[in-house]
Order: sequence, then C-alpha cells, then structure tokens
Amino acid sequence: MANSDYATVTEAILSQLQDICGSENVASEDPNVLRKYSHDQVPDDKQARPPEVVVKPKSAEEVAAIVQLANRENIPVTPRAAGSGLSGGAVPIFGGILLSVERMDRILEIDTANLIAVVEPGVITNRLDAELAEHGLFFAGYPMSEEFCFIGGNVAENAGGGRAIKYGVTGRYIHGLEVVTPTGDIVHLGGKRVKDVTGYDLVHLMVGSEGTLGIFTKIFVKLLPRPTHRTATLALFADVESAISAVPAVMTSGKLIPTAIEYMDRFSFSSAAKDLKKDYPYESLGAALLFEVDGNNADVVNTEAEIISRICKKKGAIARYVAEQEKEIEEFWKIRKQIPWIIKRHSPQQTIEDIVVPIAEIPAIVAVIHEIAEKYDTMIPVFGHAGDGNLHATPMKNPEHSLAHWETMLPELKRELYLATAHMGGTISGEHGIGHKRKDYMRLVMSEAELDLLRKIKSALDPGNILNPGKIIPDSA
Amino acid sequence: MANSDYATVTEAILSQLQDICGSENVASEDPNVLRKYSHDQVPDDKQARPPEVVVKPKSAEEVAAIVQLANRENIPVTPRAAGSGLSGGAVPIFGGILLSVERMDRILEIDTANLIAVVEPGVITNRLDAELAEHGLFFAGYPMSEEFCFIGGNVAENAGGGRAIKYGVTGRYIHGLEVVTPTGDIVHLGGKRVKDVTGYDLVHLMVGSEGTLGIFTKIFVKLLPRPTHRTATLALFADVESAISAVPAVMTSGKLIPTAIEYMDRFSFSSAAKDLKKDYPYESLGAALLFEVDGNNADVVNTEAEIISRICKKKGAIARYVAEQEKEIEEFWKIRKQIPWIIKRHSPQQTIEDIVVPIAEIPAIVAVIHEIAEKYDTMIPVFGHAGDGNLHATPMKNPEHSLAHWETMLPELKRELYLATAHMGGTISGEHGIGHKRKDYMRLVMSEAELDLLRKIKSALDPGNILNPGKIIPDSA
Repeated sequence: MANSDYATVTEAILSQLQDICGSENVASEDPNVLRKYSHDQVPDDKQARPPEVVVKPKSAEEVAAIVQLANRENIPVTPRAAGSGLSGGAVPIFGGILLSVERMDRILEIDTANLIAVVEPGVITNRLDAELAEHGLFFAGYPMSEEFCFIGGNVAENAGGGRAIKYGVTGRYIHGLEVVTPTGDIVHLGGKRVKDVTGYDLVHLMVGSEGTLGIFTKIFVKLLPRPTHRTATLALFADVESAISAVPAVMTSGKLIPTAIEYMDRFSFSSAAKDLKKDYPYESLGAALLFEVDGNNADVVNTEAEIISRICKKKGAIARYVAEQEKEIEEFWKIRKQIPWIIKRHSPQQTIEDIVVPIAEIPAIVAVIHEIAEKYDTMIPVFGHAGDGNLHATPMKNPEHSLAHWETMLPELKRELYLATAHMGGTISGEHGIGHKRKDYMRLVMSEAELDLLRKIKSALDPGNILNPGKIIPDSA
Repeated sequence: MANSDYATVTEAILSQLQDICGSENVASEDPNVLRKYSHDQVPDDKQARPPEVVVKPKSAEEVAAIVQLANRENIPVTPRAAGSGLSGGAVPIFGGILLSVERMDRILEIDTANLIAVVEPGVITNRLDAELAEHGLFFAGYPMSEEFCFIGGNVAENAGGGRAIKYGVTGRYIHGLEVVTPTGDIVHLGGKRVKDVTGYDLVHLMVGSEGTLGIFTKIFVKLLPRPTHRTATLALFADVESAISAVPAVMTSGKLIPTAIEYMDRFSFSSAAKDLKKDYPYESLGAALLFEVDGNNADVVNTEAEIISRICKKKGAIARYVAEQEKEIEEFWKIRKQIPWIIKRHSPQQTIEDIVVPIAEIPAIVAVIHEIAEKYDTMIPVFGHAGDGNLHATPMKNPEHSLAHWETMLPELKRELYLATAHMGGTISGEHGIGHKRKDYMRLVMSEAELDLLRKIKSALDPGNILNPGKIIPDSA
C-alpha cells in the first residue's frame, strides 16, 4: 500500500472527535489508556504501538463521522473489538485514531421466527450465547476466547474455534452486515434472508477482512436450534502417532462428523491438566484427543460417542473418559482452554502459530514440527483443532538460549514451518488472521498476482489507506 | 462501467485464437453455432445476442492466453458453462468472444481422505454426483437443472436449489478455485484446507460473481458422507395459507431442518403432475408442499418424516404421501422439476422470478403476489424453495392481452414485486443471479454507495471491462 505518510492528531482534530463522540469518549492523554489500546494478545512488546487517541463511538453515524474526518485529515483509523486477537490486527501501528467498539454492545433483536440475531459489534460472544440459550437457540461459532472476545472481532477475523468441523467457521453464520466503509459511507449488506446473489458477496468479503475494508456496526447472525444433547470423549494415547491416526479414522471409518476434535500433545495437555489439579496417567501419556458430538437424539449422540471411543481404543488409546453432563464436559474444555495461558506463563518468549493443512496431512505436519523443534533445539508444543487440520504449534524460547538467539532464530523457524505447511497444501493462518504479525510471510503462500488482487481491492475501497493500514498485505515487491 | 466501446474481432484476432485453441475449437462463421451461444434459458429473444466468435479452450493456459489477447485488443470475453442460466449471465451482449468451458470437463481427483473433489468447470453436476455416489460421498449442491448444468456455472451463479435449507448453497462447498483473472493471470485461491484466513476471502468473492471477476479453471469441492436414508413427504392443502403456515412450523415447533421444503401453488402443481399423468385430488387442492429429510439413521429420518406429516395435518393438509424408496422420491421431484417447463410451454411470454424474503415473510409475500396478479390481470404461478424464502413467482402473459401491453406492463409489475420484496427485508435474486436481466433493477435493493462498492471492485480487477461486461452493475447514475 502506498500511503503510510500520515498527518498527526492535532488539538483541532481532537476537538472534532469530542464533538462527534462526547469528550468522555475521547482519550488522548492518559498513558495507561493509550498503553491498554496499544496491543492485542500477541505477547511481544515490539509488536505494540500506542494510538494518538482512543475514541469510543456509540453508533454507526458516529463511526462514519470519525472515518470521514480521518479521510479529510489523512489520519489512520484502527478498529478494535475486545483486543483478544492473536495477529496484531488491532494494533495501531501508524498511531492515529484507535476506534474501540466497546460501547456498541447491544443485542438489538433475537428474531426467533427467522432464526436471526441482530447485534452490535461490542457484544461479548458468550453473552449472546447465554441469551440465545433461553430461546433454545445457539450461534455455532465457538472461539476459544468466548468469555471475553466480541462478536465484532469474531467476524473481522472469521474466527474458527472448537466447533468448526461440524458447524464451519463464523462466516457461515453471518447473513448481513451494516458497515462503515473506509471512506465513511454506511452500507447495508445482506440481512435476514438466507439466500442472496444480488451482486458480489460483499458480506463475506468483509468477514475476515481484519478491519481493513470496513467497520461493522450491526451484525446479522444466523441461529440454529440448540442441540439438546452432547457428549465429550477424552482419549489419552501413549504416543502422538496413535492419537493422530484416530482423527481421520473417526470421520472416514466412523462415518460421523464430530462437533470438535481437539488435539493436545504431552506438554500441552499435562501442563494444563496438572495446573487444574486433574488426575491422569501423566507418566505414560504422549498425546490427548478431546472429541465432542451433539444432536437432538440422545441415542444417536451416545452411539456416536461409543463409535469414537471404540475407534480410539483400536488406535491404541491408553485411557478414555466420557462426559455426558454439561459440567463434566466443561471440565474437559477447561483443560483445552488453559493451554495457551500455561504456555504463556511458562515462557514469555513464544509465538502461537495457526497453520492449517488438509486433514489427511495432519500426521505429516506433526512429524515436521517435531523435526523443526529438534533442529532448532527448542520446544514446540502442539495443540488445536485437529479435526479441521488447524494446529496451534507454539514455538517457545529455550531457556538456555539467549534472547538474541531466539530473535534471530524465530523468523527462520517460522519460514521453515510455513514452507512445509504450504508444500502440503496448507496455509499460514486458519483462524487467527494475518494482521501485522504474519504480513511479511504472505509471499510464502501467495503469488504476486494473488497479492495484487488483495492490493487492488484494498486500494479500490480505501484509496487513502486510512482503515487499519499496515495489515495483511505486504508492500509491493 | 465506463468502457463499452469495444473493438471488433478481426481476421488477425481469429487467427491468434486459432493458434491458442486449435482451429477446430474456434467458430465464427456458422450462424447456427453463433445462435446457439447467443442466449441462455431466459425465454426472451430480445435478451439474446450472438457472439462474434465462439472459442472452446481446453486448459487454464489457453483461457489465460485468450483473456490476455482480449485485453490487448479490447475485445469483450463472455464465459459460458452449460447455458442453463436464468438471468442472461452468459449472453455476450457486446458481441466479442464467447468462451465456452465445455471441453474442460474432467473430474481430476476425488480425494476421499480429505473429502475434496477437484473438477474442471465443464463437468455436468449430476455426473460428479454419480461418481461420488460410488464412494459413498456427495456434493450437497442440488440445482434443479443438475441433469445438464455445469459445476462451473453453479459456482459462477452461487446456485441454490433444492437442498439449501439444510445444506446451504453452492458456495459453502467451494474451498478452492483456480481462476483466470480479468487481466489474464492464473491464480490459485484456497485449496483442500477447510479453514483459511490468509488475506481476503477471494474464493467467495469469485463465487457468484457471474463470470465478471474471473473464469474458473479448477474447482475444489468439499464433499460430505452421503446420507444413507431419505424420505420425501408430499402434502396437499386446500388453500395457500394453510400450506404456507406449515413451512415455518416444521422448523420452529418441529425443531428440525428438512433437506428441502418446496412450495407449489395450485396451477404449478396441477399442471406439472397432470402432465406426468399423476393422479391427485386436483379438484380440492390449493397448494402443495414437498418435504425431504435425510440422515444416516433410519429411525431418526422416519421419525422426522412423521413429525412433518403430523404438522401438515394439523395445518390442514387434505392429503399426505410419504415416499421412502429412491424411485418414489424421484417421482415427487419430477413434478417439481417439470414446473418451469410446463409454464414455458403454456406461455412463451413469461418471466421466472427469483425473489427471496426472510422465511417468516413467506405468507406476506405470497399474499402480495396474489394482489399483484389481480391488479395486473395476469397469472403469476408461484413455486420454489419455500424453506429458505426463495420463491419463483412467474408472471405469465394473459392471452387476452396484447404483446405490447405485456411488454409495457411487465417492468411495472416487476418493480412492484421487487419493492414489496425489498420492503420485507428480501432481495431480487436468491439463486439465479442478476446478469443482464435484473441489472436495471439493482437500485431498488442497493444504495448508490453499495453499488459503488461493486463498481470499485469490478474496475480494480478488470480495468478494461473485458470480462462479461454489461452484467450485474447498473451504469452510474
């Protein structure tokens, strides 16, 4: 993108922002506030950058006015939902205006006749789910951070998460968007209808655009009848190969699509489960799988859980635990959700990766990750959504290595990991996005002609490069 | 779009096309060939336009060379699959080059480990399905024209069809595309991975772009395990209101999502069923619904069929017929698929519309259609995919009216129908596309700012307006 030569936020601009949003919703002086909005969940201070001003609009009209002002004054605008992202997407790397949607947090409508919820972008995903449960409905997106992430962020990143094998990712459930464009128009794309071929699919161009093509101000979420039954099966294996071999087997010879198949290697599972004071045969375990199935018929769900358990046994599981009660099921998920926090606690120098390969390539990519860990003499715990080939390999700094060594080594390690992934027909992000963190690796998975398509779309919609600049697309060669 | 001032196809250009594709695959003289490629299934000669030359490339490289040539020489290129479209999308309205993908008809791979088929655009949809059946798999798209449509056309139009309530439309199953861009680059988007947030979702920008943003040369289709059981329930009602009231009831109080809910009004059902020599209580019937459910558990499928039958009875069905055998089920579908042909035979002056409304608005839109029919003193049979709110209202010329009257009246009638649809949160096309046929009505459902997004994307990717010009986007105001 051409323009990164922006103007600074002057007193006059601050005053106009205060006129738009109210002075209590514009912060430019308190360093604690600016620091809070300088980063997302990427644990690397070097990726952080404070904004010049944080604004918290309440309506689409206020968002549009801010974006129009930014276009007139040549100030970058970085939209932000909960800041729970993992690719630096919400980091204002050129300073300027940080636009937080946290005050746009209303569930506007739950339309049970059309099975659509209309929400603002600042609604916490779990809050929506809790409200839907009362109507016997659910939103099938299930990001691992659902307790604190916002639905607006889920849509901006096209979040995947734990239920994507069966239900698909966030985008499948987004049927309409009210969007403020990069030039400050308010547009309405899609809506409550379930089919629509009126022009290009702008809704799904916006989904996953990481705040670079528009700011969502209303989101139309497709709902499903909430399944009445679910079971979770935790299977422990002596080694990685046995565990991994069970993943495709459940779908092919088991002929069933579970809601989730989560993979956790020895380090990931043991550290998290021990931290939660769980008792498992830690000595002999090499890897763990967490399966979930759901449905409206208890017999079918239980039969499927049995099939899964049987296949795991056949593939060499050393222990199997089945949970049918909500509370027990959630206890299994707690282990899985604890992993990134444990890794973070273990080593502040680490990077959660998000590679995705065709499912049949899972054993091969896990083998490659082990080779890379050995070659670079560092730990790479692997956990994630094995059922859709999306693995969070997480290189950690070896405590015996210097920080300088880690920083030199990491780009090489990542490059090797990404190239192996690409070679297997995979790519560098399945659900966390490119943002700032992975931008410079895009050429490993896209040709210059393919990158040019991204550039052309971005320039066409945002000629001033005002909206979330410096993300996704590497500079021209 | 600016450019519609194209050059003509000269002898020199023909000679270059012959060099690219072989002279036997370039036709510019035989008027029968040119006529064959001058129209799709829109039954209106005024919408037809012969190309200057028909070319039939065999590979992505040949397609790219043709598009590059067209860019150099300023010749429009109109891509065409089977020509079974219903919006004039494949009509070469500025002449130039008609690019038929009919020779690119190979099923390249059925990858059972990754549940992905890789096919060329000229594969007949039913041929793919037959081949998949041998592997116990299926492609969940189910356009009504599957016996002759091509998968490339399904993707270009984002075809919906009979199974979309449960399975969604074509786009959901497209995980990757090899595309020749409007400027003649070959790009690879997505692939066999099931999750991907590497850059914008270009795959789904291409899906439904009606040949205006790219020509597909390879298509990665996601497969599902083929359901082992299905049942169809045909329910006849005394009046429209009772039938329509059963549609949302099945999904809300029945808590199940059928594979299909097809609506057929009295005229549609009776004409088609009589034509097929079926015996039904035609005297007393006002409307019919065809439900299908599928799954892997015979008990569950049969229970669901019973629930549907019970709800239909409760809503006043006068007769119900359940089919469990494939042959019987297909007999029901034959009636449904016969309808457009019967209407066409009945009156050459007619227009199959493709409006879609939120499902809860189905009764309201059906009432509006009846009012419009009365007001304009003409018949508007209604049939289509009631379960997703997508109704093929089909205005027919009243034989007592003059052709001139019909031609003056029709745009007014359509305008009224479209405005009522838009007012209910619906839009003018659910699955047939905009093409040339509906282009001039786009302003009824999209604002100028929304149309500008389409224009900007088209201009950015196709600066010379070479690829399928004159479709989808109305000229600037």
